Amino acid sequence: MTRNLTQIEAVPDLPVIRITREFDAPRERVFRAWTDPELFARWVGPRSIDTAIETWDARTGGAWRYTGRRDSDAFAMGFWGSFHEVRPPERLVQTFSFDGAPDGVSLETMLFEELPGGRSRIVATSVVESVEIRDQIIASGMESGVVEGYEALDELLAEKS
Amino acid sequence: MTRNLTQIEAVPDLPVIRITREFDAPRERVFRAWTDPELFARWVGPRSIDTAIETWDARTGGAWRYTGRRDSDAFAMGFWGSFHEVRPPERLVQTFSFDGAPDGVSLETMLFEELPGGRSRIVATSVVESVEIRDQIIASGMESGVVEGYEALDELLAEKS
Repeated sequence: MTRNLTQIEAVPDLPVIRITREFDAPRERVFRAWTDPELFARWVGPRSIDTAIETWDARTGGAWRYTGRRDSDAFAMGFWGSFHEVRPPERLVQTFSFDGAPDGVSLETMLFEELPGGRSRIVATSVVESVEIRDQIIASGMESGVVEGYEALDELLAEKS
Repeated sequence: MTRNLTQIEAVPDLPVIRITREFDAPRERVFRAWTDPELFARWVGPRSIDTAIETWDARTGGAWRYTGRRDSDAFAMGFWGSFHEVRPPERLVQTFSFDGAPDGVSLETMLFEELPGGRSRIVATSVVESVEIRDQIIASGMESGVVEGYEALDELLAEKS
């Protein structure tokens, strides 16, 4: 079985986080898992968090919003932004904020690349306003949530399409 | 008469352009000139370019698109993006692309600050993906268009409101 490792890098001296990850599915299916709200809610974030989609208009110029909840400690957090561009199956550009820091915003550009053997790779680039903010995001523990989410996405993609 | 100079800085070592500009009008009126499509079309860009708004939904999660045209040389260019956040009268966050470089995108955060005497200041921060792209934008001559646009905005703000 292929183990698809998630690579998360802080680009030196730039307020950028770049995530690279391969998936055992064609990019069309991975792209759909990112833009179909029912599929997206099933995999995004840490496993302990339930995702409820509130707004989802995955078109160029559309908007999105969802709340993540964990019953065990009554955690709840809203996440929101806009879809700058939705270009299936290759490119997705969106803005991202969360209610805990409403003045913070990142610009997320995601490329979906085809690989041989029905596989694919995503390269996700997040740009924020300063290296300090970038380092706060990395220190916040986003990494485990990202890695757990992608493992859940592996499972979703392994289902019959 | 006050001369409101436009300050455009490339923030060292960051893919950021910061524009600071004062206006002889309260921030509420300046904010409206940025979000009302009829007002915006009257001042944005170089004087030689006519702006036609095609899409304009200045709400959090809305989208925008306009075309700039110059009859003398048949120049035409589309500009488009989404409104990540519209928070009157203090903050506007939007994405920005143009048809000449559709894979390029910048994230624009604009703060509208109140100054004594019915005046105001905007601080506009544009973040792109790399310092090279930032330098290309500055080398493209964006500065004269920005300065001319703000002078046209001065004139618009000097009209009876």
